[in-house]
Amino acid sequence: MSTEQKRGKGAVNLTMLVDFYEFTMANGYFARGFKDRIAYFDMFFRRVPDGGGYAIMAGVEQLVEYLDALRFRDEDIDYLRGKGVFDSRFLDYLKNFKFECDVWAIPEGMPIFPNEPLVKVRGPIIQAQLVETMILLTINHQSLIATKANRICRAAAGRPVSEFGSRRAQGGHGALMGARAAYIGGCASTACTMAERDFGIPATGTMAHSWVQSFDTEIEAFESYAELYPDKSIFLVDTYNVLKSGVPNAIKVMRERLAPKGCRPVGIRIDSGDITYLSKRARKMLDDAGFADCKILVSNSLDEYIIRDIIAQGACADLFGVGEKLITSQSEPVFGGVYKLAGLEAPDGSVTPKLKLSENTEKITIPGDKQVVRLFSRDGGKAIADVITLAGERIDENGRYTIFDPESTWKRQTVEGFRAEPLLKPIFERGRCVCGRPSLKEIRDFCACQIDSLWEEVLRFENPQKYFVDLSQPLWDLKYGMLRELAGKLAGNVR
Amino acid sequence: MSTEQKRGKGAVNLTMLVDFYEFTMANGYFARGFKDRIAYFDMFFRRVPDGGGYAIMAGVEQLVEYLDALRFRDEDIDYLRGKGVFDSRFLDYLKNFKFECDVWAIPEGMPIFPNEPLVKVRGPIIQAQLVETMILLTINHQSLIATKANRICRAAAGRPVSEFGSRRAQGGHGALMGARAAYIGGCASTACTMAERDFGIPATGTMAHSWVQSFDTEIEAFESYAELYPDKSIFLVDTYNVLKSGVPNAIKVMRERLAPKGCRPVGIRIDSGDITYLSKRARKMLDDAGFADCKILVSNSLDEYIIRDIIAQGACADLFGVGEKLITSQSEPVFGGVYKLAGLEAPDGSVTPKLKLSENTEKITIPGDKQVVRLFSRDGGKAIADVITLAGERIDENGRYTIFDPESTWKRQTVEGFRAEPLLKPIFERGRCVCGRPSLKEIRDFCACQIDSLWEEVLRFENPQKYFVDLSQPLWDLKYGMLRELAGKLAGNVR
Repeated sequence: MSTEQKRGKGAVNLTMLVDFYEFTMANGYFARGFKDRIAYFDMFFRRVPDGGGYAIMAGVEQLVEYLDALRFRDEDIDYLRGKGVFDSRFLDYLKNFKFECDVWAIPEGMPIFPNEPLVKVRGPIIQAQLVETMILLTINHQSLIATKANRICRAAAGRPVSEFGSRRAQGGHGALMGARAAYIGGCASTACTMAERDFGIPATGTMAHSWVQSFDTEIEAFESYAELYPDKSIFLVDTYNVLKSGVPNAIKVMRERLAPKGCRPVGIRIDSGDITYLSKRARKMLDDAGFADCKILVSNSLDEYIIRDIIAQGACADLFGVGEKLITSQSEPVFGGVYKLAGLEAPDGSVTPKLKLSENTEKITIPGDKQVVRLFSRDGGKAIADVITLAGERIDENGRYTIFDPESTWKRQTVEGFRAEPLLKPIFERGRCVCGRPSLKEIRDFCACQIDSLWEEVLRFENPQKYFVDLSQPLWDLKYGMLRELAGKLAGNVR
Repeated sequence: MSTEQKRGKGAVNLTMLVDFYEFTMANGYFARGFKDRIAYFDMFFRRVPDGGGYAIMAGVEQLVEYLDALRFRDEDIDYLRGKGVFDSRFLDYLKNFKFECDVWAIPEGMPIFPNEPLVKVRGPIIQAQLVETMILLTINHQSLIATKANRICRAAAGRPVSEFGSRRAQGGHGALMGARAAYIGGCASTACTMAERDFGIPATGTMAHSWVQSFDTEIEAFESYAELYPDKSIFLVDTYNVLKSGVPNAIKVMRERLAPKGCRPVGIRIDSGDITYLSKRARKMLDDAGFADCKILVSNSLDEYIIRDIIAQGACADLFGVGEKLITSQSEPVFGGVYKLAGLEAPDGSVTPKLKLSENTEKITIPGDKQVVRLFSRDGGKAIADVITLAGERIDENGRYTIFDPESTWKRQTVEGFRAEPLLKPIFERGRCVCGRPSLKEIRDFCACQIDSLWEEVLRFENPQKYFVDLSQPLWDLKYGMLRELAGKLAGNVR
């Protein structure tokens, strides 16, 4: 059985993971005869977590699986009927529900930026509305964790990072899909067995303090482990005292149990205390004992800031185990993606753009059927800017193109010698899945490659350079024209 | 089909949601002949999230379901065999795995405090170790959300709070189990349909901005909704402008569409802008129009602090919808529960207590087979203190009992006239579930009642009075005796 099949078998049908108002609205669209009215919705986010300069798209594969499996079971229909608010024809419609939308998404692993559509849905409004909750949940969650993982892995500067967070994850999917997203973001491995079984992410682990404690002495615990896993032992050295007990005992076992078998030691793990100090002292002890090749794995509430700082302080850390601060993106555990109506299609196929005004200016949406185009410099391949365009626009790669700041429109730049790549790719056509399924390893490699296309200034942890996400002139004209018109209707006084 | 059955059918088997090192250790215990050695493990946490004075136990029902369903499938065994590190007898053991542990847990809804065992597992070490990841994941997640929900509901001071966070949850379980935990903590309802279907939590909702935008005008959108749901309409008034458009249109529809049908309006919803200002102005407009009974539901990144502040400022908010800050416990998204070995049983049934020393003093564990006893004053029913005792101890409710601070042992207090309730209740005996299954409503009521037993000083959001969690004299003697002995072995120099 393939991994795909196994996963499918175990998957819960999440069709009912829907905000209840999606049903009351859907019932309303049905009753008003709007069932087949074609709508455009965009998912986008407004701010990069942790004040960062970029985020990473993730979760598309699970979104595809959800959309592919959209079906209401008889029990679901019975439950809805029991609410006493739904029209029976609407319930029949749900019973025979067949997903018919077109869906586009930015591929997993791609760096993404605020305000640009990450997922676009075109289809009967009743359907496009119903999938809101799960589109948001799936992409928000995995993009959050992939983004955090990438920050952490970048801080580790080439040293492998293992995802250790299942026990602190927010639910089972939090652990499993979080491990998946962390791998996309750059983690080398996970502690979560299920993530290896289902996604092929290398599962690794050391030993728990309970292993050490379950023997009369620390050295017996190490000896026992070394005998079982002579070429895989990483000794946890902080159960009693790192420098006085753990490291000396580990060295003794390396000498007396591993060396005679011709095995080199793999590593030790430090999980408490001051990592910088302890790892330096432990390194010296290991080196003096002739085990310069023995790695030091450190853990204990690490994140990108602590990793950066201890590396700067000269900590002798070769591997990092990162738990709760990665699996929950603790410093900012919400990726605030939203899903907004962007347009309604007339029977002749023309699109009436829709815009949401708001008391909060940053909550005003971008109207219309859109595409996101990334301009890459032909000279060096760096990403220059993203331009949100109307869907039909073409940017001539061989010409000059002027980009401008949508707020301060006098800030302009003309670029040439670029490659223009549309980022939104079709994943469903008329309800049928049309996208390939890259392997997770391919997604991870793609992510690393795309991150390389960003300037270091954009990748900085704090106060990064803002990557340009501009509107094309036609889209800018549309949005600000609509804003002026709406403000006019509200008597010009909308502050 | 009962809700229980439905849930069971849809449940994913989470047996493989295990940190990989649990398997390598289990294989080690097996190889060393420790398979049937009886161990005691405690789950406990060290710090209340958000600097609060109390947390709330939740997740026990899902823990029970997980333990009840513990089984390795053939594919799981095949996968493990493919790793090439496990003994084939160990794999046979897993293939025929039958859970045989005794498990105790503090009931869901009970206030809990740092350092006291929340879950205690006694059984073959190989088994007690394997369940670590899921015990932690389940209790950590739901206790985190129940605790946050209780803070938010307390801030709302009697006004109903609805959980609105599915779209920002960390995965599907994050949404579903988060809605469950939020209900335990005091939320009145949820937006998550699946949480009503599976847990009977009332599902509610209003309308999205897309509903309003999908009509040519706001008033048509309101009229349409009012016609469909005349006795259930809550009008979202901030799509264009709350005071100039939304509220006047809502009032017009209440007058012209609801009143003629004899329907009183239910409410309006404000989801952006300054909630205090807008709700006061909207309240006045509604009152002046004769709709003093029309409720105002507010949302937009609320948490306990914002709710407390806007109520103090006189915001006219009757209902709160709380999203991402609740479903992820955004301000502190980790409940740092840990699972530690506390003892090993000799063949004669005597328990050798185990203690984990640490460079970080607060990480030192409490050894032995333990119970947690809550002392309630007979006069008023308030909780006085929790005492962690050895399992065999009895506290005489009719006598005087001296409690003391385990760090500053000169801080002492003698109490009398109390009821002593053991908090750890058996949930599994020899692998068989022995606990009742209270309904979620019963758990929620129990939680409210138990919160009432805490002093207001303990319930304060910031800088609360620390609730006493003491050790009994015999347990204190055991712990500090072991610490002295261990320090002696390390040559008395362990700072």
